[in-house]
Amino acid sequence: MKLTQLLTIFLMTIGFTSQTLFAAELVKPSPNGISLPKNYKDWKVISMSHRIDNKTLRTILGNDIAITAARAGNTNPWPNGTILAKLVWKQKAEKQWPSAIAPDKFVHAEFMIKNSKKFKATGGWGYARWLGLDQKPYGSDKNVAQECMTCHTPVKDNDWVFTTPAIMP
Amino acid sequence: MKLTQLLTIFLMTIGFTSQTLFAAELVKPSPNGISLPKNYKDWKVISMSHRIDNKTLRTILGNDIAITAARAGNTNPWPNGTILAKLVWKQKAEKQWPSAIAPDKFVHAEFMIKNSKKFKATGGWGYARWLGLDQKPYGSDKNVAQECMTCHTPVKDNDWVFTTPAIMP
Repeated sequence: MKLTQLLTIFLMTIGFTSQTLFAAELVKPSPNGISLPKNYKDWKVISMSHRIDNKTLRTILGNDIAITAARAGNTNPWPNGTILAKLVWKQKAEKQWPSAIAPDKFVHAEFMIKNSKKFKATGGWGYARWLGLDQKPYGSDKNVAQECMTCHTPVKDNDWVFTTPAIMP
Repeated sequence: MKLTQLLTIFLMTIGFTSQTLFAAELVKPSPNGISLPKNYKDWKVISMSHRIDNKTLRTILGNDIAITAARAGNTNPWPNGTILAKLVWKQKAEKQWPSAIAPDKFVHAEFMIKNSKKFKATGGWGYARWLGLDQKPYGSDKNVAQECMTCHTPVKDNDWVFTTPAIMP
């Protein structure tokens, strides 16, 4: 192997590693101090939804604690350490199958982080959202979660969570 | 720790391991000889869709080869070794947010397996589907993929795949 090839492989390795390790750290935290969870795109799927009111599609992913809880039906309350991620896209009709509605432009990624002690004031959950592909933190001050809680109040008795894990084999 | 506690942990470990390792093997293969891919529920998400014609929601997952290809935009053709999984549910309206359409009863899991040599006769893809929570193989004979191909013909120029990977940050 030539020295140039070795050097190329070395630089690609460095590039890949730094991208994986530091990409999330380049994103600014939410105004309430919550940092973007790392590698959330690699989490397993819990459910999905199609909001026909605002024409968006959503996939709901969970970290390992969330997945274990979801599969065991242990979701009211969800255990401490749970993180739920909701990835949201505007909808479009599939060109080759127009009655299939599929993701178009990426809207945002939003998170619920369970820590009954740390987030006691907001029902045991920390809330944060990052907008668009450049993941700009949502909200103007540290009370950003109040808006989230208002919307989640109808599911207060479901540990503040709308999502029911999809039934799987 | 008491002996009974130790025994309980031991039995749970055995149970969990055997469930993980052998559950897929208890499912019968598709009539064309394809076996149910193991641990597909743990794969990462590629996209999702809502088919308003037959009122189903779908999440599309991929094995590691598929995810690497999807994130690199290397999907026409998808590389050999790709497996795409589509999990399908009947739809329902969320009780607490009726304009959100969410998964109800599980319908089936279906797969496309890329091997341009092995599956040359069917466009380089092996097709298989397992119905319901008991994962009964779909189809009555080894030519089951013909029906799949007929449906996928409109996307022949997209390497026979309807799904476009959802754009993510």
